[in-house]
Amino acid sequence: MSSVAAYAMAGPDAGFEKVTIERRALGPHDVLIDIAYAGICHSDIHTARNEWGGAGYPCVPGHEIAGTVAAVGSAVRRHQVGDRVGVGCMVDSCGVCEPCLQEEEQYCLRGAVMTYNSRVAEEVQPGGHTLGGYATQIVVTENFVLGIPEGIDLSVAAPLLCAGITVYSPLRHWGARPGKRVAVIGMGGLGHMAVKIAAALGAEVTVLSHSLSKQEDGKRFGAQHYYATSDKQIFRELRSHFDLIINTVSADLPIDDYMKLLRLDGTLVVLGLPEQPLAVQPKVLAGRRRSLSGSMIGGIAQTQEMLDFCAAHGIGAEIEVISADEIDGAYERVVASDVRYRFVIDTATI
Amino acid sequence: MSSVAAYAMAGPDAGFEKVTIERRALGPHDVLIDIAYAGICHSDIHTARNEWGGAGYPCVPGHEIAGTVAAVGSAVRRHQVGDRVGVGCMVDSCGVCEPCLQEEEQYCLRGAVMTYNSRVAEEVQPGGHTLGGYATQIVVTENFVLGIPEGIDLSVAAPLLCAGITVYSPLRHWGARPGKRVAVIGMGGLGHMAVKIAAALGAEVTVLSHSLSKQEDGKRFGAQHYYATSDKQIFRELRSHFDLIINTVSADLPIDDYMKLLRLDGTLVVLGLPEQPLAVQPKVLAGRRRSLSGSMIGGIAQTQEMLDFCAAHGIGAEIEVISADEIDGAYERVVASDVRYRFVIDTATI
Repeated sequence: MSSVAAYAMAGPDAGFEKVTIERRALGPHDVLIDIAYAGICHSDIHTARNEWGGAGYPCVPGHEIAGTVAAVGSAVRRHQVGDRVGVGCMVDSCGVCEPCLQEEEQYCLRGAVMTYNSRVAEEVQPGGHTLGGYATQIVVTENFVLGIPEGIDLSVAAPLLCAGITVYSPLRHWGARPGKRVAVIGMGGLGHMAVKIAAALGAEVTVLSHSLSKQEDGKRFGAQHYYATSDKQIFRELRSHFDLIINTVSADLPIDDYMKLLRLDGTLVVLGLPEQPLAVQPKVLAGRRRSLSGSMIGGIAQTQEMLDFCAAHGIGAEIEVISADEIDGAYERVVASDVRYRFVIDTATI
Repeated sequence: MSSVAAYAMAGPDAGFEKVTIERRALGPHDVLIDIAYAGICHSDIHTARNEWGGAGYPCVPGHEIAGTVAAVGSAVRRHQVGDRVGVGCMVDSCGVCEPCLQEEEQYCLRGAVMTYNSRVAEEVQPGGHTLGGYATQIVVTENFVLGIPEGIDLSVAAPLLCAGITVYSPLRHWGARPGKRVAVIGMGGLGHMAVKIAAALGAEVTVLSHSLSKQEDGKRFGAQHYYATSDKQIFRELRSHFDLIINTVSADLPIDDYMKLLRLDGTLVVLGLPEQPLAVQPKVLAGRRRSLSGSMIGGIAQTQEMLDFCAAHGIGAEIEVISADEIDGAYERVVASDVRYRFVIDTATI
């Protein structure tokens, strides 16, 4: 075991405080990572504040982790000391169920072990629940450690590990490519990555945002079209237009209005988790053989593919680097959608 | 123009009466069909009673038509006098839009011309709206006339033209085949065809019906499993189990309960048109990358493929043949789900 500095919340209403946590001793397949940066994801906030229920405390969020390998266990083959690496939302899965064998560990039938707030044995994480990346070091089994290619800064790579793969996976699964019209609802942490990646995949990208305030950014990230959804006229104009709509917004939207924007065999993929059920008229589905779907991060192999893809295309997140003592304020700004486009904690400040 | 005997409703509350209607003179691409049988679809009832609005009167329903070619226009190449033929839900489409060019005429962007109750020019159908198959003859452009293979009786072939293709198309589109688990919700006109066709495609078929009253039939049609959905325990037992669920029921179901029965990448396809919107929890979609979709009949080429498939596998509808003066009573029994499994009008009785 080793003692590691971290930022934690002691309860759902506490602010973040510097604490010392324990990491397990390095097993033969483990990798010890010196964390350089940890992104702040909205899920971190929901968990730390126990808005989804089931939070364990102290809570150390953080599943957009980038750093370098400090040490490896005796049997580790995939990574070496000094390698630039990342860790995303998962740190383990059963490895033997059908989704795991299909390299879709995020859908592990036993439930993947998430990077933070997953119940685990004491030998996996002293304290009994996983503790994430708002810390100086983390120990992760080698198969869940990603390589971060040269040519992409660790700070802008960190958010790729959640925001990046969450949009890359459905874009690839539903075939974003040249000749396909892709709409991205929302221009936040996920949305801005979706625009960059969909554009790099060659799709014709349209942003549907509540206002035009981020239009210039959207065009710079690769969107060819940008519409404010406050203008109801666009729902007529864009009817039956898109092959794929990526909904990155967690607010409750009139989903039928967006479904109607899909052309024949089009799919709308929900990535956020709105509180209300999505209400769809059957005839809106049947009239164009449309689909309403959901997607959850991506598998480890595909996460590596995404990192390689982003490096090859010069894609990183747009970030604002903060120090660890600024996390509380950053949370407030994330909730207020006041960030362009992702906060990243410089863990050297912990 | 030719005068043809038919059964029509004069208004939404009228019963069926024998009438004389006009069919257009045979154009160069037209086929005149002596109708032998016309199936009764629930859509006929909704339209005749104007439950969907927009009904034109006199209303002659019928889009499950089987008969023989009586005459052909000068340019007709696809059919000959004496051929066994069928007509389904559509009698024309624009032919030049993207879905039409993809042989998905049912999704024609201008709207396919439906076999009955579509507004058309007087020269297409005297009276200005199409009149369907509850008649002794019909004139249809050759591209929308299907060949009915030898070895399948015209009476049991008739319902294939709507009920058959409506289930065949999604079963094929979403890959029902050996190794796939397919559930069929409802064992009515569509459901019993879905069971037969899915089984013939090699899938492992399960029926989810409100009761076990048709279990014996279901097994005979090819289902391996049969469950009563009144037993809520099955929703736990079958969780994450199916690759494809075909919902043939128009009643409002708790769709989320059924969505949870889908395994990774599974799809639930809605074929009926329940009145209420379908309400789905986003996390039910995202948790297994599930999809909720809809589908509407099938294209002409695929309808021919379906007829050939059914003939090759000895598949026809289970029918109860009635005379034309029994239509009113048959409608009552369809509404009461009291038919095993499709009424077919013997048009010789008109």
